[in-house]
Amino acid sequence: LRDDSSIHTSFRSDNDAGMAPPILAALSACNEGAARAYGGDAWTRRVEAQFEQIFERKVGVLLVTTGTAANSLALAAMTPPWGSVICHRLAHVLHDECGAPAFFGDGLKLVPSASQGSKLDPVQLQSELRHGAGDVHSVQPTGVSISQSTEEGQVYECTEVAAISQVCRDNNALLHMDGARFANAVVALQCSPADITWRAGLDVLSFGATKNGAMGAEALIVFNDKLQETLPFRRKRAGHLMSKMRFIAAQMHAYLENELWLANARHANAMAQDMARGLATVPGVRLAAPARSNILFVQFPASMIVALHAQGFDFYHERWGEGVARLVTSFRTTEAMVEAFVSACQQIARANA
Amino acid sequence: LRDDSSIHTSFRSDNDAGMAPPILAALSACNEGAARAYGGDAWTRRVEAQFEQIFERKVGVLLVTTGTAANSLALAAMTPPWGSVICHRLAHVLHDECGAPAFFGDGLKLVPSASQGSKLDPVQLQSELRHGAGDVHSVQPTGVSISQSTEEGQVYECTEVAAISQVCRDNNALLHMDGARFANAVVALQCSPADITWRAGLDVLSFGATKNGAMGAEALIVFNDKLQETLPFRRKRAGHLMSKMRFIAAQMHAYLENELWLANARHANAMAQDMARGLATVPGVRLAAPARSNILFVQFPASMIVALHAQGFDFYHERWGEGVARLVTSFRTTEAMVEAFVSACQQIARANA
Amino acid sequence: LRDDSSIHTSFRSDNDAGMAPPILAALSACNEGAARAYGGDAWTRRVEAQFEQIFERKVGVLLVTTGTAANSLALAAMTPPWGSVICHRLAHVLHDECGAPAFFGDGLKLVPSASQGSKLDPVQLQSELRHGAGDVHSVQPTGVSISQSTEEGQVYECTEVAAISQVCRDNNALLHMDGARFANAVVALQCSPADITWRAGLDVLSFGATKNGAMGAEALIVFNDKLQETLPFRRKRAGHLMSKMRFIAAQMHAYLENELWLANARHANAMAQDMARGLATVPGVRLAAPARSNILFVQFPASMIVALHAQGFDFYHERWGEGVARLVTSFRTTEAMVEAFVSACQQIARANA
Amino acid sequence: LRDDSSIHTSFRSDNDAGMAPPILAALSACNEGAARAYGGDAWTRRVEAQFEQIFERKVGVLLVTTGTAANSLALAAMTPPWGSVICHRLAHVLHDECGAPAFFGDGLKLVPSASQGSKLDPVQLQSELRHGAGDVHSVQPTGVSISQSTEEGQVYECTEVAAISQVCRDNNALLHMDGARFANAVVALQCSPADITWRAGLDVLSFGATKNGAMGAEALIVFNDKLQETLPFRRKRAGHLMSKMRFIAAQMHAYLENELWLANARHANAMAQDMARGLATVPGVRLAAPARSNILFVQFPASMIVALHAQGFDFYHERWGEGVARLVTSFRTTEAMVEAFVSACQQIARANA
Repeated sequence: LRDDSSIHTSFRSDNDAGMAPPILAALSACNEGAARAYGGDAWTRRVEAQFEQIFERKVGVLLVTTGTAANSLALAAMTPPWGSVICHRLAHVLHDECGAPAFFGDGLKLVPSASQGSKLDPVQLQSELRHGAGDVHSVQPTGVSISQSTEEGQVYECTEVAAISQVCRDNNALLHMDGARFANAVVALQCSPADITWRAGLDVLSFGATKNGAMGAEALIVFNDKLQETLPFRRKRAGHLMSKMRFIAAQMHAYLENELWLANARHANAMAQDMARGLATVPGVRLAAPARSNILFVQFPASMIVALHAQGFDFYHERWGEGVARLVTSFRTTEAMVEAFVSACQQIARANA
Repeated sequence: LRDDSSIHTSFRSDNDAGMAPPILAALSACNEGAARAYGGDAWTRRVEAQFEQIFERKVGVLLVTTGTAANSLALAAMTPPWGSVICHRLAHVLHDECGAPAFFGDGLKLVPSASQGSKLDPVQLQSELRHGAGDVHSVQPTGVSISQSTEEGQVYECTEVAAISQVCRDNNALLHMDGARFANAVVALQCSPADITWRAGLDVLSFGATKNGAMGAEALIVFNDKLQETLPFRRKRAGHLMSKMRFIAAQMHAYLENELWLANARHANAMAQDMARGLATVPGVRLAAPARSNILFVQFPASMIVALHAQGFDFYHERWGEGVARLVTSFRTTEAMVEAFVSACQQIARANA
Repeated sequence: LRDDSSIHTSFRSDNDAGMAPPILAALSACNEGAARAYGGDAWTRRVEAQFEQIFERKVGVLLVTTGTAANSLALAAMTPPWGSVICHRLAHVLHDECGAPAFFGDGLKLVPSASQGSKLDPVQLQSELRHGAGDVHSVQPTGVSISQSTEEGQVYECTEVAAISQVCRDNNALLHMDGARFANAVVALQCSPADITWRAGLDVLSFGATKNGAMGAEALIVFNDKLQETLPFRRKRAGHLMSKMRFIAAQMHAYLENELWLANARHANAMAQDMARGLATVPGVRLAAPARSNILFVQFPASMIVALHAQGFDFYHERWGEGVARLVTSFRTTEAMVEAFVSACQQIARANA
Repeated sequence: LRDDSSIHTSFRSDNDAGMAPPILAALSACNEGAARAYGGDAWTRRVEAQFEQIFERKVGVLLVTTGTAANSLALAAMTPPWGSVICHRLAHVLHDECGAPAFFGDGLKLVPSASQGSKLDPVQLQSELRHGAGDVHSVQPTGVSISQSTEEGQVYECTEVAAISQVCRDNNALLHMDGARFANAVVALQCSPADITWRAGLDVLSFGATKNGAMGAEALIVFNDKLQETLPFRRKRAGHLMSKMRFIAAQMHAYLENELWLANARHANAMAQDMARGLATVPGVRLAAPARSNILFVQFPASMIVALHAQGFDFYHERWGEGVARLVTSFRTTEAMVEAFVSACQQIARANA
């Protein structure tokens, strides 16, 4: 029962990797005996305690199984139906969730910022948050969402998050962070989880575990108490309150225990840096930006993409312009995979020279 | 890390049980290698084939992780926002999903039938399906939802489903079955899955696995082709398209393989029948209805409920009137648990005599 | 260009009557010159002042053109999407608005009370407001809606409204009054508008003018400040912010000026009382309840209904059981119309004797 | 009771003008006798017949009172909740309706086209309609909305509408026209209403009357039969089915009778052309585009705007960049108003020279 038979190495997405062994072990360990359903179990309590330790304060914790659910619940809780949420023009919430935030938020509007570069610009954001404010004919800009690390593999520094949150506060807007790859950012920044979130003014975080080794486990971490009240009802109403919650909690527990989350991310980031270093040696290949987390955008000669696919390497390349490919590493990527890929590139380059 | 320390035996819900061993084993088995995300994997294909074999025809299959999601997606796909779905006055979709069908269905209305007893009455249904039809001032009755087995532990015979579906067709309504405990019904009826569903005129089925041994896996089985088109978008938009779908598919695969689903349900039903037989011998205790599946409603002397709880038995009892308790057995319930419970009842009855 | 050519007298609905002359005159009077659109005009300001005088306090005023809009905006503003609003089993909001409150309220649920009689019973309401409260699996009972006068032509006394609002406050619920026929109730009760609304604990009122002489003008009167913030956005977003608002305001102004609203209602109520007195003299005809406002429910011999229709009288009769008809009088009903109707009944009764 | 006391002449919006006399007369004329509510009256039938004559074919007609309602109902009827509608970056539906289309359409997404200029470019549109099509992670581009005349006062030629509708058909998308100022476009194009709508491939038209002389009356004209089925329910559910519909129908009847709609628009357009000719003589003033309908965008010296406002002229100017003002003429604009304005501009220019 093997899939994708013509592919031997995938840099398509960190979603293609399976579970990290300690997470699989946790599913087995928590399978004994009866446990209260719907989060009334001991594993869920324990995960809440872990998060409070990691974030160095009391936080609200809601476990769900997908990033789209986490993001959409957060945006819906912080935005009225006639509100808008400003996000990066390449944001996952904007392009890759089939309008889920508008569904959860009863019609809320996602507005791409005109910010240049791969991160939101606080100055640009300021003017966008004022556009239409108070005018009954216009949707009301009441929220901002940033991705950390970003869809282009970059990271917001603590000071950058703080500058954005300041603009939000100045304009009565709330700030959400899509942390589907939060671990990769924390590792890249070498900062504390608290510093890059609530101490920088964040209201709510989608804390992802799935892409970094879980089977399907994400946590909504709520720093702003006002957002807490409606979330349990929103989660249930969206069908995201798992009956056998202990199994989601057990995944998250193992993910946080012994810093597995940081170790996995550290490995994935290191593989991306290896890849970047290797590709820098290949004629005709150019990195769009320095490797900060586990995603690289690379400009290839178009023929090289065809050749790499033919050799059994897999990755996305059609969305970002001619010859631009996205390479994603994960906790399961090995040095050998990276070497094989770089080596194949070099060979193709030589053959085409 | 044990929960619920004062409880040694729970008849609270089949949700309190964990995973059946073959399902846990399947999670482990499918964890090797990369697999396309979002259902592009081989396990998902294989589950689709299994369902087509079980239902003896081509069917649409959408895997999700909760019953609320399965039910709500089905009802939303079959009902316009101004439509109503008639269901039993005790239906799970009506009382226990925090209005999820109205959320997924953009305001669709669930209407409890005035049918007496624990099942929908086709004659009553007929008049309810005509109420307001075609009148722009009224919501439009366009759907019916039945639970199989029912919330009271009863089962619809094939002829009963066929009578209801005939009334639906006569009135341009579609028919959904909430099969959170579908396996228990199939075992009780000793019928084929095809006979009790599409051959009896069903349009769409929520096929549950979670309560009967999976960790979190439900399938929407679509018999009516017209419902197929929108469901993939609805699922994604609701955050219910799992990225690492192979793990949901693997659970379902193991659940269907070697008829585990039927074996587990057969055991749970047998435990309920043992319990029923045992309780029939206890003075002052009366079953509300014969044991058909894995749920019993039992009239206890009020003091006996207090005493049973004090001894570490757990079950719900406050929702259905003074002294009425619900006892639910599962694939994990043992003969010893049932005997201990019956025995405790007898002892309490003697002490009170 | 005459409609309904076979009908000479209609007791079908107060919606069938046109505009009262002062209201038509007001449309003409306000048609001079330019006026700021969307409610920025002087007529709108003046209506706000009128309402503050009538209600003896500061109130929020939002003008719209239909009762369905007024009711739905009110219920949406006071109820979260997972909230429920308890109403009478015959309420207009429940049966006659095609689910509009669920649309405006993003899925909110209307729940018919089990109260007997034509009004809500505070004791029954109390238990209904507690059902499921705080349980994440259940919709949350957070609102109550009463109709004044009721769909059956009865009126809530001030003490009755106060008793209901007390139950609401005790259970953190808000109270809405559908006053499509508010004027008829005020006249019947001989009370002040303030006494029957906010002094009795009401949070928000749909103040109707359309059925009682306007062309299409209703006001949402907001007593609870917390509801004010979102309503302007909700109204615009629902397409109910009229650009040439002055014409809605002018209607309402003329309706309130010189107590036209009370005079019209007094006349309509008097016509209903005349009708009741007259019908009491007809053998075989029985009033369901004493005449309190402008709606009568009357038990006729079935053949009499057929004969009355044949003679050109029009009224509804198919919705409330065999032989039960609803007769509605309006500001345009004349004594002659009532006499002609009663007289026709007497003649038919004699012929059938 | 005069508003806006410091303003003697407004070019702010055609919404600021009142009713044309024949429309006021029609309200009076139709006020006699009873008429069936909710559109069951003879005036509504007659308007339907008028539209079929004007459009030279059978059409669906739904009367409503606001343009936002007409547009939002149309877009909701043609688009699934996960669908997107591509529109011009300055479209009224995108900026000026507080997200109403997303509310009516249960979360549908409006996407501004990257088209340059004041009209949609079919080539650009083609690529935008293909973006994400069939991809479950993306909203689905299923509709296009154009404004005729446009928000910048330009008009689509018949061939331009046909080119856009061809691209729509090629990509399974439907085409809506926001005709809030449809009359102004028909007059400018000197074409038949049929040619610029269904013969050019249009599916549904918002036919506006309010801005051009009605009190509050718009018609949804449905050319595509598939859109017809759901609209009556959508209209009622949104509170836009007027009970005393005859008064909306009477307005529309008078608007269409004797070509009042075209005469009013012809006048408004002529006033804009007079204005354009006059302003062309003022030093430092520049028209952004030739005058095609009744809206001009004009580049003024910033100080001239201040001076004009001080003299009692009113118009919008803050939304389109430094010194850019929008001037809107209406059926009520007089030659004297235009002359006074131009003359004031000339005087200010001289004073500043």
